[in-house]
Amino acid sequence: MKIAVLRETFPGERRVALVPAVVPQIQKLGTDTQPVEILVETGAGEAAGFTDDMYRERGVEVWDDRKSLLEKADVLLQVRTLGANQEAGRSDLDSFKRDQVLIGTADPLGAAGSIKELAEKNVTLFALELIPRITRAQSMDVLSSMATIAGYKAVIVAANHLPKLFPMLMTAAGTLTPAKVFVLGAGVAGLQAIATAKRLGAVAQAYDVRPVVKEQIESLGAKFVELNLDTGDTEDKGGYAKALTEEQQVKQREQLADIAAECDVCITTAAIPGRPSPLLITEDAVQRMAPGSVIVDLAAERGGNCELTEADQTVVKHGVTICGPTNLPSDAPQHASQMYAKNVATLLALLIKEGQLDIDLKDEVIRDTLAAKDGQVQNDRLRDMLGME
Amino acid sequence: MKIAVLRETFPGERRVALVPAVVPQIQKLGTDTQPVEILVETGAGEAAGFTDDMYRERGVEVWDDRKSLLEKADVLLQVRTLGANQEAGRSDLDSFKRDQVLIGTADPLGAAGSIKELAEKNVTLFALELIPRITRAQSMDVLSSMATIAGYKAVIVAANHLPKLFPMLMTAAGTLTPAKVFVLGAGVAGLQAIATAKRLGAVAQAYDVRPVVKEQIESLGAKFVELNLDTGDTEDKGGYAKALTEEQQVKQREQLADIAAECDVCITTAAIPGRPSPLLITEDAVQRMAPGSVIVDLAAERGGNCELTEADQTVVKHGVTICGPTNLPSDAPQHASQMYAKNVATLLALLIKEGQLDIDLKDEVIRDTLAAKDGQVQNDRLRDMLGME
Repeated sequence: MKIAVLRETFPGERRVALVPAVVPQIQKLGTDTQPVEILVETGAGEAAGFTDDMYRERGVEVWDDRKSLLEKADVLLQVRTLGANQEAGRSDLDSFKRDQVLIGTADPLGAAGSIKELAEKNVTLFALELIPRITRAQSMDVLSSMATIAGYKAVIVAANHLPKLFPMLMTAAGTLTPAKVFVLGAGVAGLQAIATAKRLGAVAQAYDVRPVVKEQIESLGAKFVELNLDTGDTEDKGGYAKALTEEQQVKQREQLADIAAECDVCITTAAIPGRPSPLLITEDAVQRMAPGSVIVDLAAERGGNCELTEADQTVVKHGVTICGPTNLPSDAPQHASQMYAKNVATLLALLIKEGQLDIDLKDEVIRDTLAAKDGQVQNDRLRDMLGME
Repeated sequence: MKIAVLRETFPGERRVALVPAVVPQIQKLGTDTQPVEILVETGAGEAAGFTDDMYRERGVEVWDDRKSLLEKADVLLQVRTLGANQEAGRSDLDSFKRDQVLIGTADPLGAAGSIKELAEKNVTLFALELIPRITRAQSMDVLSSMATIAGYKAVIVAANHLPKLFPMLMTAAGTLTPAKVFVLGAGVAGLQAIATAKRLGAVAQAYDVRPVVKEQIESLGAKFVELNLDTGDTEDKGGYAKALTEEQQVKQREQLADIAAECDVCITTAAIPGRPSPLLITEDAVQRMAPGSVIVDLAAERGGNCELTEADQTVVKHGVTICGPTNLPSDAPQHASQMYAKNVATLLALLIKEGQLDIDLKDEVIRDTLAAKDGQVQNDRLRDMLGME
């Protein structure tokens, strides 16, 4: 069987779905009689630092012609397939074959309509955002691995813009006090942001609606911020944060503004899957921050946690620099691709038995992640969103 | 007496020579009958995060009119005076008054001609680059304090461009190996770069022609790189590195290329005062580095330590990103200004007694730093460079 890696077409995307070092892990899913061959589109890894020759050294065939690659492949690996690549992704749509397996991110909860389009092409789509949040699937969880990169990079972006240094330095020219970093939302990205800020010497505090993360925050050396909101259960069964009532949100924003006003850097990471990002930092709160402060809003893609965030822009408002990056993993494309490739290879090991595709719907991971097959949208949550029975 | 702080006019310069928090330290050099008044030009601190109101709160008068400020002041404080601000700095030249004291960086060894021009205006110039490298003067040493900022920022710039993360991370999606950072030149900037790279989790090694810095490098947790060059005494009496012979340089570059080829990041900091930067990383060496590697060349202002560096540009050559920032302290203007102001305030304490100027040439620090007075270039080294007796 043939597994093809496509060059990404999303504007600015520098990641690649498979890196040379992970190739052997996939090749060994084949047998002597049923080998797994890997094909890569020319230049697919270049922006991530992987040359065509590096793939060739691993026994990968490098293909110039995308159309014939799409034609030949039993399985297609992408970082962004249609849904996560709304415009440029559309040009491949007519080239997909019946029963071709597509593995990639597809923004299923944000762009369910695209999943339907793919279903209508009769492809078998695994949308990696749907990987269940269970222990066994952690090694395939691209949302987690990419959030790790984003959390780290958010701090680097902040350090780049902050007119101060992060660490405390005691020098002959006096003492520089450490930067104060406030992380809002302590999921994977938030925790990695805390860890990175601490590495660089900052003083960190973090807020999350879920009190269960207090211990994780404190274990990284940051202070856990508790607000008085009268919330009950704040975590859904997938481990994501639930939405608050309007009254709770007003209280929350007021108390967050008090803390932000004392900080040099705010990193906001609060996202609810498939929904607009909750507003946490109002324009008022920005105005109360010191000139030169920095906000990095990782929720920018769905409107942002800060009222003044502009997606993919860095703006200065009321003296505060506000960054709204929507694709930070692509800014560390080498490590991001390595992690993504590991996630994909682990999923492939579930899907390929003795060199043959074997889609076992009794497996929870496979069942949950399968978004389209046999002309139908498969995932119940997606079918609900699309008004299907 | 009146001390005036001018708004900087050098393109892109965001620092300011005095910050509000350091104002009291200077005010207290005055007495009831001989007060030291401080005036600041409107907006002087804005780019560094210090508003006019912050100065006013410290009892500073904020002046809109630069000409009348230049007219009124006994002492002028600048980050960059003529020499360190060749073009825009020229417009103040005719406004300086006889015996007016000018304190700032002036690039005396690189732009001795400008010192002569200032001398001809009969100003009393203290060029801060000439602060002697003695223990007592460390608290006034702007080269050291600004190098601290530059060394830190160089690592942030590298982390921003590197397609990898710096720290080793062990995740469900596999292990990310730590970035390998090579620092060339272990002066203040180099040592701070090592410290910052280590904070972020990188593996660091460093090279310096002066074997005496081995212990300092190792105390930061980095490996000291020893080359086989047959050098003798490599440090001049000021603590700066001496130049190598041509033959030694060829050997040096070959061995450095071997190490650079194995690294993700090279930070080069080798500068010889008043001379072009030594070439350490040839185009050949760049070609041998892995795609995606990053070079940050802190010697870019005087030609760079890397053959492909372009001053103030970020270029990608042979797949390697090469950054040639020439004014990194200005990218952390708040802390840089704070340190600069501390340096200046400490020097002022030597120059002002009971609210009166008292330029005591028996004081080594004052004597060495004084570049022009009474119509004459004063510093012997500068007089040599200008062919004066």
